[in-house]
Amino acid sequence: MHILVLGAAGMVGRKLVDGLVADGRLGKAEITKMTLHDVVAPKQPEKAGFPVEVLSGDFAIAGVPEKLIAGRPDVVFHLAAIVSGEAELDFDKGYRINLDGTRMLFDAIRLVGGSYKPRVVFTSSIAVFGAPFPDAIGDEFFNTPLLSYGTQKTIGELLLADYTRRGFMDGVGIRLPTINIRPGLPNKAASGFFSGILREPLAGKEAILPVSEDVRHWHASPRSAVGFLVHAGSMDTAKIGPRRNLTMPGISATVGEQIAALKRVAGEKVAARIKREPDPFIVGIVAGWPRNFDPKRSLELGFTTAEKSFDDIIRIHIDDELGGKFVA
Amino acid sequence: MHILVLGAAGMVGRKLVDGLVADGRLGKAEITKMTLHDVVAPKQPEKAGFPVEVLSGDFAIAGVPEKLIAGRPDVVFHLAAIVSGEAELDFDKGYRINLDGTRMLFDAIRLVGGSYKPRVVFTSSIAVFGAPFPDAIGDEFFNTPLLSYGTQKTIGELLLADYTRRGFMDGVGIRLPTINIRPGLPNKAASGFFSGILREPLAGKEAILPVSEDVRHWHASPRSAVGFLVHAGSMDTAKIGPRRNLTMPGISATVGEQIAALKRVAGEKVAARIKREPDPFIVGIVAGWPRNFDPKRSLELGFTTAEKSFDDIIRIHIDDELGGKFVA
Repeated sequence: MHILVLGAAGMVGRKLVDGLVADGRLGKAEITKMTLHDVVAPKQPEKAGFPVEVLSGDFAIAGVPEKLIAGRPDVVFHLAAIVSGEAELDFDKGYRINLDGTRMLFDAIRLVGGSYKPRVVFTSSIAVFGAPFPDAIGDEFFNTPLLSYGTQKTIGELLLADYTRRGFMDGVGIRLPTINIRPGLPNKAASGFFSGILREPLAGKEAILPVSEDVRHWHASPRSAVGFLVHAGSMDTAKIGPRRNLTMPGISATVGEQIAALKRVAGEKVAARIKREPDPFIVGIVAGWPRNFDPKRSLELGFTTAEKSFDDIIRIHIDDELGGKFVA
Repeated sequence: MHILVLGAAGMVGRKLVDGLVADGRLGKAEITKMTLHDVVAPKQPEKAGFPVEVLSGDFAIAGVPEKLIAGRPDVVFHLAAIVSGEAELDFDKGYRINLDGTRMLFDAIRLVGGSYKPRVVFTSSIAVFGAPFPDAIGDEFFNTPLLSYGTQKTIGELLLADYTRRGFMDGVGIRLPTINIRPGLPNKAASGFFSGILREPLAGKEAILPVSEDVRHWHASPRSAVGFLVHAGSMDTAKIGPRRNLTMPGISATVGEQIAALKRVAGEKVAARIKREPDPFIVGIVAGWPRNFDPKRSLELGFTTAEKSFDDIIRIHIDDELGGKFVA
């Protein structure tokens, strides 16, 4: 099995690649080749039991998706995107990468034709939903995104479903919760603080909380995100039916509950490193975001989280990123 | 007020133009100029009390939308589209006109910038919904189109909402019911028979019914469609909020109820001109279409139908198209 990962240098992409290299298989299929692509060159994996080609550049340029598809990958993980804050600030860039790039990729697959029909896993987002919504959003609630990023992700979902229905590919769209705790440096996502208020204090640093503690949101660990991707890449898609886009399971928690979990797992002193500095731009964006979901379909289809509580989310970060230790 | 109509040579476009020319105003605003565009030249209206420019050609070509917007129309009615059956048969053409064309039009408006922010009325469709759905589809039901046409219309709705939210235009998307009775010759829409089984018998001709009589669908007269467009072009959009796409009111009826209405209004002999010839292609498409709606929002926002029953729909056709007479 040949696997192509677009967005392979991103946080989730790197973890997915590490997991696939370690396992040597996706579901029951042995991996025989991987192709990794991102705007900056992804790291060449060490000790892979199969050839790994590493490519870099802008994928949303005529001819590039065709080259990526020329090797006829059996599974395509499409994780490449301009994140929410940047897509809001740079209208043209967000539409060019998130809409045009996705469509160019799908068209490159379509235009191969014949019997070529790869599994395509598209990472969508809960930003496809916009307020007002019910306390827990069900699987049939409508998409009225309040950001250009959410608009672009919704359009990607629609294209994925139509291209799948027409037999060009075998698509699965997964709406990832906000990933928490994101390791590494902050990115331009407006949701960055949800991780920052935990990650930075655990590293002995101050963190800025730009919203109030009663902001409720929907979270999953990086470990869960990789699990969702692997399941979407290997599951029996006949069970999904034509509605190919699924809200992934997660943990609903307020910022206050996040901080309480941090206190339980790491102590009061760590939590005291959080500084309150309200930011109207972030407050405005987050006000339109979902708080909780009732993702019956994805649970029935076998998607599961690696964590049972927000305390688990913090412990997973300490285990996977900090070698089991934090700065008390 | 300068009004631009795209798709002005189509059935609804012609009726809209005739109505605006007759009224001389849109809502409370006096019309000072109209620009009409379609792929075939729209008819030059007679006796218009203002200049009317008539243009023809493909609007989804780089530079053309910019030219159409160069006159800075205050209101744009965007009715141009490849219909459902044709968009299903010609993948590239459907996406090029329905998606790319719509986006190019919106971008031409966006790139004017400054204080230019026209009202844009986009004719969407109930094909944005796909089975299975509840018996009556509410205003918050999700979009899972089962045709490329419905996919393209949903994407147009999303772009309209995002471009409006970002302040580039003042958009209103209206999901028209199937228009019944369509005058003139059949077009390539898969829904054509819903009108054909009434229009042809009233003209003394045979008509083909390609589906069973228990097929239920959602209808409005051409008179209602023009009323929806005029209201969308002149209403106070501040009342709509960010959810800019609205399901229009209509009449839910089965094919059997349509035929019963035809018998009541025109007699048994007219209804006997309908021939049953099931067509699996049409049956398959129509199976995924909505049957009934609960369009609370559009009713609250002042959209109303011209008819109260299917009998009225038939009478409107006899009055507006047949000079009050049919072939008994």
